[in-house]
Amino acid sequence: MSVRIPFDDLVALLAAILRRHRCSERTAASIAANMAAAQRDGALSHGVFRVGGYLGSLDSGWVDGEAVPVVEDVAPGFLRIDARNGFAQPALARARAALLDKAEINGIALLSIRNSHHFGALWPDVEPFARDGFVALAMVNSMASVVPYGGHSKVFGTNPLAFAAPRGSGDPLVFDLAAAALSNGDVQLAAREGRQLDPGMGVDRHGHPTTDPNAVLDGGALNAFGGHKGAALALMMEVMSAGLSGGNFSFEVDWSDHPGAATPRSGETLILIDPRRGASRDFTARIEQLVGAIRAAGGERLPGERRYAIRREAARLGVALEEQELAELRRLAGQ
Amino acid sequence: MSVRIPFDDLVALLAAILRRHRCSERTAASIAANMAAAQRDGALSHGVFRVGGYLGSLDSGWVDGEAVPVVEDVAPGFLRIDARNGFAQPALARARAALLDKAEINGIALLSIRNSHHFGALWPDVEPFARDGFVALAMVNSMASVVPYGGHSKVFGTNPLAFAAPRGSGDPLVFDLAAAALSNGDVQLAAREGRQLDPGMGVDRHGHPTTDPNAVLDGGALNAFGGHKGAALALMMEVMSAGLSGGNFSFEVDWSDHPGAATPRSGETLILIDPRRGASRDFTARIEQLVGAIRAAGGERLPGERRYAIRREAARLGVALEEQELAELRRLAGQ
Repeated sequence: MSVRIPFDDLVALLAAILRRHRCSERTAASIAANMAAAQRDGALSHGVFRVGGYLGSLDSGWVDGEAVPVVEDVAPGFLRIDARNGFAQPALARARAALLDKAEINGIALLSIRNSHHFGALWPDVEPFARDGFVALAMVNSMASVVPYGGHSKVFGTNPLAFAAPRGSGDPLVFDLAAAALSNGDVQLAAREGRQLDPGMGVDRHGHPTTDPNAVLDGGALNAFGGHKGAALALMMEVMSAGLSGGNFSFEVDWSDHPGAATPRSGETLILIDPRRGASRDFTARIEQLVGAIRAAGGERLPGERRYAIRREAARLGVALEEQELAELRRLAGQ
Repeated sequence: MSVRIPFDDLVALLAAILRRHRCSERTAASIAANMAAAQRDGALSHGVFRVGGYLGSLDSGWVDGEAVPVVEDVAPGFLRIDARNGFAQPALARARAALLDKAEINGIALLSIRNSHHFGALWPDVEPFARDGFVALAMVNSMASVVPYGGHSKVFGTNPLAFAAPRGSGDPLVFDLAAAALSNGDVQLAAREGRQLDPGMGVDRHGHPTTDPNAVLDGGALNAFGGHKGAALALMMEVMSAGLSGGNFSFEVDWSDHPGAATPRSGETLILIDPRRGASRDFTARIEQLVGAIRAAGGERLPGERRYAIRREAARLGVALEEQELAELRRLAGQ
C-alpha cells in the first residue's frame, strides 16, 4: 500500500539513516536530498530504493561518508574537486557558490570532480543552476556495463548526461539520459519476471546480440542507445568525466574487495554557461518560443514535464512510497 | 570513373569557383578547405557534392559571401560573433586565435556564432583544436526536419554535434553525429531508388510512422535517432546553438523568397576545454588507455578512424572524385 509523507520529513528520515552509517552531517543532508527528490518526482529507481546500495557502500568502507572534499581553484573558469573518496553531491554543494561566481564573471565555467561516487539521479545536479538562470550540462561515468559499437565486452558505463536550461515561465527544461539502451535494473527486472528484452538492448558473453536478460547479466553487456551514435556519446562521457577529472574510467572500477558496495568510483564534469552573455535580447523568452513550437507540433511532452507533474502532486499530498518501505526506513533510522 | 587530384589543388579549384560567386578571399578559402577536407576523408555528402548548394545560396543573395564577421569579446571566457549573414567557418577562423587564448587562460571558453550559415561537415570545426591539445564540443542547428518525440510535424534541425579530444599518439578522437535518425539526402536517395526506409526513421504528414521515403518528403518529417533520447539532444542543440547565440531556431528558417538557396541560417556554439587544467597527470596518456580498452573489447572502430584511413590514402594518391565532377568544377572555375 502506498503512503504519503512530507518531503522535508523524508529528507530528515534519510539523513538520519545515513548519519548512522558514518556519514557527516553535510554528506547525509546532500545524499538524502538527492534520493528524496528522485522519490518525490517519481524517479523511483533513484529514490529510496537506493538506500540499500548506499548503506552497502558505506558499511563496506568502499565510500567515505565523512570525506571532506577539497576544492582547487586552478583557473578563472576551472574548478577541480578532490572528493576524497566521498560522494559527488556534497563535493558539488561545496563548490556551488564559487562555480556560479566563475560562470557569471567568465560567461562559462567548468567543475571537475574526481575520486567521487555518484549513485544518484543526475538531474538534481543541474536543475538548481537553471533556476538561477544558467544553462548547465553534466556528465558522469559509472561502472562498465556498455559494449563499444560492434564489440564483445563492456567498457563504458551506463553514463548519464544531464542538461538544464531556464525558461521564461515555469519550471526549467531539464533532461537526464543514460548512454545505455537500458538500465541494469531493467535487465534484472526482466530476468526476474521471465521476460525477453527488446531486440538491440544487449549482447551475450560472446558479443552476440541477445534478447535473453540472463545472457546479458551472465557476462554479457548492454548496448548503447541509438547504435554507433549513442556509443560515441558514451565515449565522450568517459573522456569528459573520468578523462578530464583524473578519475577512474568505468572499466577501471574494481570493488571486488568491498562486498556489498554498489556505487562506482567515478568522475563528474559540470559546465555552467551564463546565457545573458549571448546575443539573445531575452534568452528565456526565446526558449519559450521553442517550447511553443514543440507543443504546436504535438510533441508528446517536454523533458522533465512528467517529473514536475508528479512533484506538484507530492507538494499537495506528500511524497508517495510503499508502506513497507517507510517502515523499513524508520527501522533503519532507529525510530 | 574516379580520378585523383592533390588536396591543395582541390582547395584552390573550389576557392576559385567561390570567388566567382561573390565570395571574399577569406570566405572562399575557408569554405573550400571545409568541402575539400570532407571530399578527401570520404565524407562525400559534405564534399564537392555541395558546390551546387553553396552557389545557389550565394547567387540568390541568401548568403553574403563577402560578409566581414564581427567578433565581440563579452567576457573572459565568452566570445560572440555576428557572422553578418555569412558562413560560420570564416567567422570561426577569425576568432580562432582569441578563443584558444581564452581557453588557455580560463581553462574553458565558449564561442557563439549567430546570423551564420553552416552548410559543411562539423568535424572540421573541432578537429584542429584537438590537434592543439584541447577538448572541443560544437553544436549547430539547421532547418526544421525532425519531429519532436511523439509529435506530428518538424521543429528541430538534423542538428549535428561534434566532439574532439587529443590522443597520446596518432590522430585525435573525433566524432560528428546528427540528431536526425537519417539525413535528408538519404531519404531523397531512397525515394529515387524506390527503396523503403528502415522502420523508425520518419513520419508522414499526419505524424504517423512510415517507411515510405516519399511520405517523409511530402510534408512528413524525420525522427531523431534513438527515440526520446535523441529528441532531447536535438532540443539541447537548438538551445545551445540558436538559443544561446541569438540566432534563428531551425523552425524559424524561411528562405522561400530566395529560390535555389540551400543553407539554413543558423547558430553555432563551440566550447573549448584545456585538459591540462584537469587533475590527470597526463590526459592524452589516459585517453590512450581508454582507446586500448575499446580495442581490447573488439570495438568496431574508433570515431574518426574510417575518415583517417581514407585521408592517408588521399595523402599518397590524391583526393578521389568522379571524372565528370572534376570536369564540372573546372568549368565552374572558368578553367
